[in-house]
Amino acid sequence: MSTFGKHFRVTTAGESHGKFISCIIDNCPPGLALVESDIQPQLTRRRPGQSAITTPRNEKDRVTIGSGTEFGRTLGTPISLIVMNEDQRPHDYGAKTIDVYPRPSHSDWTYLEKYGTKASSGGGRSSARETIARVAAGAVAEKWLRESYGIEIVAFVSSVGNIKLFGDRPTTDGDEIDSLSNHPKFLELVDTLTREKVDEFLPVRCPDDAVAKRMEERIAELRDQHDSTGGTITCIIRGCPSGLGEPCFDKLEATLAHAIMSIPATKGFEIGSGFQGAEMRGSRHNDPFVSTPAVDDIALSASVGIPPSRLQTKTNHSGGIQGGISNGMPIFFRAAFKPPATISQDQTTARYDASGEGILTTKGRHDPNVVPRAVPIVEAMAALAIADALMAQHARHLGVKIAAAAQ
Amino acid sequence: MSTFGKHFRVTTAGESHGKFISCIIDNCPPGLALVESDIQPQLTRRRPGQSAITTPRNEKDRVTIGSGTEFGRTLGTPISLIVMNEDQRPHDYGAKTIDVYPRPSHSDWTYLEKYGTKASSGGGRSSARETIARVAAGAVAEKWLRESYGIEIVAFVSSVGNIKLFGDRPTTDGDEIDSLSNHPKFLELVDTLTREKVDEFLPVRCPDDAVAKRMEERIAELRDQHDSTGGTITCIIRGCPSGLGEPCFDKLEATLAHAIMSIPATKGFEIGSGFQGAEMRGSRHNDPFVSTPAVDDIALSASVGIPPSRLQTKTNHSGGIQGGISNGMPIFFRAAFKPPATISQDQTTARYDASGEGILTTKGRHDPNVVPRAVPIVEAMAALAIADALMAQHARHLGVKIAAAAQ
Amino acid sequence: MSTFGKHFRVTTAGESHGKFISCIIDNCPPGLALVESDIQPQLTRRRPGQSAITTPRNEKDRVTIGSGTEFGRTLGTPISLIVMNEDQRPHDYGAKTIDVYPRPSHSDWTYLEKYGTKASSGGGRSSARETIARVAAGAVAEKWLRESYGIEIVAFVSSVGNIKLFGDRPTTDGDEIDSLSNHPKFLELVDTLTREKVDEFLPVRCPDDAVAKRMEERIAELRDQHDSTGGTITCIIRGCPSGLGEPCFDKLEATLAHAIMSIPATKGFEIGSGFQGAEMRGSRHNDPFVSTPAVDDIALSASVGIPPSRLQTKTNHSGGIQGGISNGMPIFFRAAFKPPATISQDQTTARYDASGEGILTTKGRHDPNVVPRAVPIVEAMAALAIADALMAQHARHLGVKIAAAAQ
Amino acid sequence: MSTFGKHFRVTTAGESHGKFISCIIDNCPPGLALVESDIQPQLTRRRPGQSAITTPRNEKDRVTIGSGTEFGRTLGTPISLIVMNEDQRPHDYGAKTIDVYPRPSHSDWTYLEKYGTKASSGGGRSSARETIARVAAGAVAEKWLRESYGIEIVAFVSSVGNIKLFGDRPTTDGDEIDSLSNHPKFLELVDTLTREKVDEFLPVRCPDDAVAKRMEERIAELRDQHDSTGGTITCIIRGCPSGLGEPCFDKLEATLAHAIMSIPATKGFEIGSGFQGAEMRGSRHNDPFVSTPAVDDIALSASVGIPPSRLQTKTNHSGGIQGGISNGMPIFFRAAFKPPATISQDQTTARYDASGEGILTTKGRHDPNVVPRAVPIVEAMAALAIADALMAQHARHLGVKIAAAAQ
Repeated sequence: MSTFGKHFRVTTAGESHGKFISCIIDNCPPGLALVESDIQPQLTRRRPGQSAITTPRNEKDRVTIGSGTEFGRTLGTPISLIVMNEDQRPHDYGAKTIDVYPRPSHSDWTYLEKYGTKASSGGGRSSARETIARVAAGAVAEKWLRESYGIEIVAFVSSVGNIKLFGDRPTTDGDEIDSLSNHPKFLELVDTLTREKVDEFLPVRCPDDAVAKRMEERIAELRDQHDSTGGTITCIIRGCPSGLGEPCFDKLEATLAHAIMSIPATKGFEIGSGFQGAEMRGSRHNDPFVSTPAVDDIALSASVGIPPSRLQTKTNHSGGIQGGISNGMPIFFRAAFKPPATISQDQTTARYDASGEGILTTKGRHDPNVVPRAVPIVEAMAALAIADALMAQHARHLGVKIAAAAQ
Repeated sequence: MSTFGKHFRVTTAGESHGKFISCIIDNCPPGLALVESDIQPQLTRRRPGQSAITTPRNEKDRVTIGSGTEFGRTLGTPISLIVMNEDQRPHDYGAKTIDVYPRPSHSDWTYLEKYGTKASSGGGRSSARETIARVAAGAVAEKWLRESYGIEIVAFVSSVGNIKLFGDRPTTDGDEIDSLSNHPKFLELVDTLTREKVDEFLPVRCPDDAVAKRMEERIAELRDQHDSTGGTITCIIRGCPSGLGEPCFDKLEATLAHAIMSIPATKGFEIGSGFQGAEMRGSRHNDPFVSTPAVDDIALSASVGIPPSRLQTKTNHSGGIQGGISNGMPIFFRAAFKPPATISQDQTTARYDASGEGILTTKGRHDPNVVPRAVPIVEAMAALAIADALMAQHARHLGVKIAAAAQ
Repeated sequence: MSTFGKHFRVTTAGESHGKFISCIIDNCPPGLALVESDIQPQLTRRRPGQSAITTPRNEKDRVTIGSGTEFGRTLGTPISLIVMNEDQRPHDYGAKTIDVYPRPSHSDWTYLEKYGTKASSGGGRSSARETIARVAAGAVAEKWLRESYGIEIVAFVSSVGNIKLFGDRPTTDGDEIDSLSNHPKFLELVDTLTREKVDEFLPVRCPDDAVAKRMEERIAELRDQHDSTGGTITCIIRGCPSGLGEPCFDKLEATLAHAIMSIPATKGFEIGSGFQGAEMRGSRHNDPFVSTPAVDDIALSASVGIPPSRLQTKTNHSGGIQGGISNGMPIFFRAAFKPPATISQDQTTARYDASGEGILTTKGRHDPNVVPRAVPIVEAMAALAIADALMAQHARHLGVKIAAAAQ
Repeated sequence: MSTFGKHFRVTTAGESHGKFISCIIDNCPPGLALVESDIQPQLTRRRPGQSAITTPRNEKDRVTIGSGTEFGRTLGTPISLIVMNEDQRPHDYGAKTIDVYPRPSHSDWTYLEKYGTKASSGGGRSSARETIARVAAGAVAEKWLRESYGIEIVAFVSSVGNIKLFGDRPTTDGDEIDSLSNHPKFLELVDTLTREKVDEFLPVRCPDDAVAKRMEERIAELRDQHDSTGGTITCIIRGCPSGLGEPCFDKLEATLAHAIMSIPATKGFEIGSGFQGAEMRGSRHNDPFVSTPAVDDIALSASVGIPPSRLQTKTNHSGGIQGGISNGMPIFFRAAFKPPATISQDQTTARYDASGEGILTTKGRHDPNVVPRAVPIVEAMAALAIADALMAQHARHLGVKIAAAAQ
């Protein structure tokens, strides 16, 4: 299925070499101010060609709203979005050998196994171009979350190859280590980082001058070596109301994991303390509750029917989710991206027809690292997961009050 | 929603203090031999009280099949399973203070925020007891996968706290590190490890004598300190046909991540090279294709309509999935579990009514580490994800041939 | 799938000869007072053996709540219900010939075609016993609708064979006929009929002494002839808020039709003017709007967040739904039930193995008419459809206000 | 939700005054030959302006495939279709009064109640223009069904107002009446009627010269009276394999009813004997089985993995479905359409603001009867329901064989 969400429901279509990429957003609440220019900025952030270290192809990616709005407001009916494929150039991948060899660690082979048909764009739906539809849909979800609940979602690059923003994991008491959520650099960013700030660190989107510089150099180095590298993105969701996430199978961390692990090239996901948390003691990992200070800036979320949680936690190893349900603290997670499979080196690999091996040559310029461009994609998928959880909670929420009133 | 899967569809119900845990499996293919004793072994593997280092409560957990089978075969109609709650004892948690304080990093608070109602079992659906239904359903899925496709799913404990089966990550060429999939110990296990072998290493289920011994000692130490620790589980899926997984949002790694991250206490998920893969070069991470040797033992899967992939990969950093679709190689992933939140130490935390802090005392004996018991749960959730992907592929699969025949 | 609803979600299992019938209700709002005795009355109304003209088998059908409630209130977690099969007697259908011949117009043959397996209960999931789970789930939905919104659902028998409560359709001006919604008898019932009143007309549940008498005689006559007959049920839903139903595919009449046509033996569904409406002029069929009188008894529904519609319609040929969305007027529909296929007459029909024809003998006493017993089933399915639509609207509803507030 | 189907899954968007109508078809099997000209004919059949008695607006309705195909074959990935709104003219409805009065029996009022926002196109998603997306998606489904299984779907107008193709219901033995399925005229059409034949009877699409003539005259008469009338459409599905339809809630007649009752203006649905069946005796209504004659022209469906049913029925009061599952006989159903609500007469009705009543004037030329144009819409929705049921069966089907083979 090319659908995400059960309530805020997004269906996408499109591959590199069709006429357009498209997306239908079903169930977006009515009355939201929405025009193309609300969506375009994230599409532009996703575009390649933003700097010397990213691929120079200039995709235009202009979005058109086809339905679901009138006079700049959503109607409550499905919102249809399309982005034309202007720069198709299907033969720029070194057509000769990729017709003979499935590209290693690409989806050419698995799509053929799945569908029994070989598309000229290989596994077209696994191309980076597919993510345009996600980003467009996510931009709509984000606007709703921001304007109606004050929710902010900010992602940034936390590592490129082995160059890491949060350095080595700080060891504390003997055999115990500590979680990202206690890292001083992370605590500095968690409440204040904005997308504008992140974009000051283009082309790598890692919010630290020294680390960003090293990342940029590393990427340039790999580009010159016709090689590539992976990295990680950390994402912070601020202002999320408590109570979101469904018990059992649709825990909030599970739907976030689903959302993020559906992004091309992801290899890992962790919430809160993550894999580091597995090494901690319970007495240290547990997040004690404290009363929430009475502040005015939480008034907005109170006004929309979901009052802020009266309790907070002192630490946040939980990453804002306990028992699968948001507790009102910042939600944060980290995603791992593998190195891009398309590299400008010769690779020895088997032929499609299993008749033996040979040399696959992939010419052209290719992104040696995609994580900076993946930042808006991660934000989009996080927004879709949260918007869906919010609507799920609303579906039952009024019922709570009603039942209470009827007692 | 308490439902997992779109095709092989499992719905569960039940919390610690109700009359029973239940589960309905919809769409299980007909003709499968199925009696209670096919399901019971995994439930028994999940049970606490299996050794000195796990909690001594003796839950009986006998499963009853209520419908969907006749004369020991599935009918194709929904299979209903129930397990009675025999050992409820709702007051054994130190009733006095847990009525006043929500337990830190437990779900007491978030369930209250979500539902506006305080259950005596706290967040009942987040209790470990809920996982009984998953394991029961998973046992049915596994049997179908094993008997019809020869698919084997084996999970094991790969770390407890900072004691790790696969040790430190082997550094290779300068700034590059290598993935789990090249680790000699892992390569030794990936093709041969069985559940029987894993259970030889009870109580910790880590398939290495020396490491298992250290884990056992560490858990005993923490028990004596009234503390707890987390750990990781690695899971291998062998014999999975190529072509499973849906492009875009329901990539196989995404639905596996969803499945696994829905297990209580999980904090992280990684597929194949995982977070290590993010640090590798593309030229090293790429898995070159080679022809699949013609062997007889793949005949079974060929006989059921899904011929084995004609190509394999030399390395398997991809973890058996490329572009979101299985390629026929072993699928493997790793999950991180946090330390259990319930510890027999006093904890300072806020009151439910936000009127200030105090001391929460949680008496009784509690599991200092749950990962050995989580092994069958991980296997169950993996089975449910694969069974669902198989049926999704079947839905369209015949169509492929039909369309081809019609040409 | 054995699941109904996307929000108020019911999954059922069970056939005649298994151990129990079961049902899981997911997403029922928390805080609703709910004990077994809230559910039992509708199960009892559904039971056979209530009078001389229905089948004398005495099924006990006691429901047990296994989870999802505590101290008599729903927790918001899945509600699990089971009803034991106490009276299985699988061989009372004339075992000899039904092993050789699929029963005409029964599901023996189609289940075999579908699943490739022959169950001793024939198409077990199409047996009347399956409807127990619907009625149990519907009783929960109805309680929520009634207590929280003041919605009342009342169904009754409107015809048995060709004996009709509403007689021939009144012709009005020349070539035009009129809809049920203008029938004087219907207008007399639409605002006042209760289930208690309906049950005063047992065994046929047709709220008119003379007509009920004739129906009873007709059924007795057919019983003596070892034959059967069908009938229709009319259902009224009062107090349904406006705004329910999703545009396009999930129009409220479409989901009601789905719900009702899923009841065994149904052959037709019509909403409002129905098939008669197809013969009317637009100028007569159109329902003009008038202002809703300001009355106090609509205060309840106002208090729960869905204010009553400020406009009503003068006539109600629409049946309370316009453009697929409820308008606040009474919703009413009619369902046709075929005559029961199981009759105590010899029938000439083909053998399972297609080797020729012979005589199928079905002994025992069988219901010559099921519509009186189907009344609570129709009410249950209507309740499930409305509850689901309500939650769908809630999911988006708060969003409306929020977006408005944010402007 | 604007989505139909769980397997062959269609999501639509678009209202009259947006830029385009769009549709994404998810899960269409790969390898199907598909170009725009496969879809266009049904869109053209749906278009208004085909004759003197239909509305003269000339909508062009050219479909564009944006993704999911390459070199004229489906890839298995989502198929995106758009149709531009070329003829928007939002003010041609008599702008002055429709801004003040919600149109009776239209969706202006209910959409406002639902979404809290008033669109210039009234209930835009309930406009006839929305059905373009259904017809486009249905054309794809039909092609797959026809080419892969030999399934044929043909609908036709069976009544306009009280002018009926099948005349009065034939009375047989005393108090019994007979079903449509025994009507000589119907039996003449059921095996042979084609779309080409139906279109010979344009503009009314009723396959009988005399009746069609009377219908045409009646529609012209109502047009001159500035009034409208309804009608019924009968649809036949030939060549449908046995075994389709899911027990319990997704019986084939239930999903067909859902599909058909979601078409704008429908008021009723009946399958097989329908409401007439409710008046029949069981001994007459039951369809005895007979062996299926061995014929070659069923070879196609055998070749695709679903062998034809070895049994047929002598009569077909069941309408091809028994126990919710297809039995291989022709499926047929009937749908009732109300008279169009938009008429060129003054109507007295309430103001939007409930401040009193006045006169709504709706100028322009309006369709006095929509059933001829609804014929391709009914065919499309029937195709979507059958395609979905086929894929549901496939999902489990291979499993049947596999389980059998494993025994």
